[in-house]
Amino acid sequence: MCVRRCVITVGDLGEFGVVKRITGRLPQGDAVMLGPGDDAAVIGAPDGRVAVSTDLLIEGRHFRRDWSGGYDVGRKAAAQNLADVAAMGARPTCLVVGLGLPADLPVDWLDELTAGFADECATVGASVAGGDVTRCDLVVLGVTALGDLGGRAPVTRSGARPGHVVAVAGRLGRSAAGLALLSAGVPVAAPALAEAVAGHRRPCPPYESGIEAAELGASAMLDVSDGLLQDLGHIAQASGVHVELDPAAFAPFTLDEPVAAAAKELGADALEWVLSGGEDHALAAAFPAEVRLPEPWHIVGRVTEGSGVSVLGREIGQRGWDHFR
Amino acid sequence: MCVRRCVITVGDLGEFGVVKRITGRLPQGDAVMLGPGDDAAVIGAPDGRVAVSTDLLIEGRHFRRDWSGGYDVGRKAAAQNLADVAAMGARPTCLVVGLGLPADLPVDWLDELTAGFADECATVGASVAGGDVTRCDLVVLGVTALGDLGGRAPVTRSGARPGHVVAVAGRLGRSAAGLALLSAGVPVAAPALAEAVAGHRRPCPPYESGIEAAELGASAMLDVSDGLLQDLGHIAQASGVHVELDPAAFAPFTLDEPVAAAAKELGADALEWVLSGGEDHALAAAFPAEVRLPEPWHIVGRVTEGSGVSVLGREIGQRGWDHFR
Repeated sequence: MCVRRCVITVGDLGEFGVVKRITGRLPQGDAVMLGPGDDAAVIGAPDGRVAVSTDLLIEGRHFRRDWSGGYDVGRKAAAQNLADVAAMGARPTCLVVGLGLPADLPVDWLDELTAGFADECATVGASVAGGDVTRCDLVVLGVTALGDLGGRAPVTRSGARPGHVVAVAGRLGRSAAGLALLSAGVPVAAPALAEAVAGHRRPCPPYESGIEAAELGASAMLDVSDGLLQDLGHIAQASGVHVELDPAAFAPFTLDEPVAAAAKELGADALEWVLSGGEDHALAAAFPAEVRLPEPWHIVGRVTEGSGVSVLGREIGQRGWDHFR
Repeated sequence: MCVRRCVITVGDLGEFGVVKRITGRLPQGDAVMLGPGDDAAVIGAPDGRVAVSTDLLIEGRHFRRDWSGGYDVGRKAAAQNLADVAAMGARPTCLVVGLGLPADLPVDWLDELTAGFADECATVGASVAGGDVTRCDLVVLGVTALGDLGGRAPVTRSGARPGHVVAVAGRLGRSAAGLALLSAGVPVAAPALAEAVAGHRRPCPPYESGIEAAELGASAMLDVSDGLLQDLGHIAQASGVHVELDPAAFAPFTLDEPVAAAAKELGADALEWVLSGGEDHALAAAFPAEVRLPEPWHIVGRVTEGSGVSVLGREIGQRGWDHFR
């Protein structure tokens, strides 16, 4: 009679069992010319160039297993890397993923993680084309995204010029609102609050808007990882310009129901989350003023001579996330 | 009067200080069209395809800071990924590196790590083109290598056919010998023993031999990460063949002075290290018998009908490293 709880773990499967289990659940798209199972994958780069970005995600720092399930962790880890590639104006083609896994990790959690990676990739036509599995006391994810520029120039951070407008596509403040709710430990039964928490667990980057922005002639672009003010500071610095934001323009973000409901619940400032909250992976870009911006791009400010970022004339320090402070 | 030891740490520099310090020490090669500092790097892929491989290295599991300095860790982390790309017959073009660093890590160690990455890349004309820095209680390295196939078909694990020869380029057994010396804690004053330890700390993959093998028509290839027997087992399985090794052919490896000296010192079996030791990142490949193999390729066996790997007719289990066992 089995009285112990019978949970199959990563350690039960062993390294090659884990690899087989993961790769069996990863559909491979057209860009993948050689998928998992060899020393390296081979990915199409029809443009003759490849955009590449990498991130390291550490349990307890970038996610908590008691706050996010494997599926959400997979989607978030994929999303933040795919967004980096889209923010260059490139179409993501694949991820490769290094996984550090505790031996006692339930295989169910790993299956959810795999599904999260696969589903997020599928939203933009990319695939998980390869990876590496090793043992670690914490869950660690080393995620690298590749993308194809489709003949376009990469949209860097350095092309913003005075007279350009600054616009945002995607969500702002939701992840910070959800994190604040989780940190406060308040009940999140109300649908709007639950949606804020979901926004923290799983960002929703507007990948296609990145490619569209490049086609429209965006002069600078990035994805908002560390907070809009801090990240626009990078554009200001790289471009040698000043970015002036209009606080009134952020109404669609502060009035976004999950953000507004969380701010009300916690007595917090929604605009603070919108301007300084990270991890929504919205795209922020500068465009020449004459460009007609399609939805969901939304103008929030303009580029002028000078340096730094201001809101309503008030200079803003680089508030945002520093991993060592 | 400063009585505390004044060591500048990663935490003192902060995230952006660390990034600036690292990127200022990384020369960028011709393949790098856009280097560090943006959401993604842009790398030339003139072939229209890109080979990509990733590995995760965890302190305490893949390296120990009391056994290896930052420089050796950097070289080894770079080497094992560059070797994966070379094992496809591709020329490595760049690495991107995710770094998890403890806040109390001395900046000197980080500088050494950076130099190790840069120097190993330089041996094959590649560059560290981008990365990510985050805080972690352990040093964690997520390393991804890209490479260009130069118009050649990738050399996978599945093309070995009965009648082909099996050959090795590079070192075998040195890393295992060095690890055994370190584990035993014996003094390593003798030059040959010191060389074995150096071989553990810093592998020396024969990158050019990988590209050369592809040009010569290698039918299958991989880099020896987990031990020759286990890794040739992957070729046998993927190709649906048997690999028969001739123990006499390994004399150059067992008589390699550092390996032989370590075996004598510890009363160990040098052939066991040569056949089952990992982390030397030699290349092992199958070639049609008529191919004239240049140095340093050395024939160690042949491909026959069947499955698995044998040495002198004795079937060998897949001895080697499993990260979960």
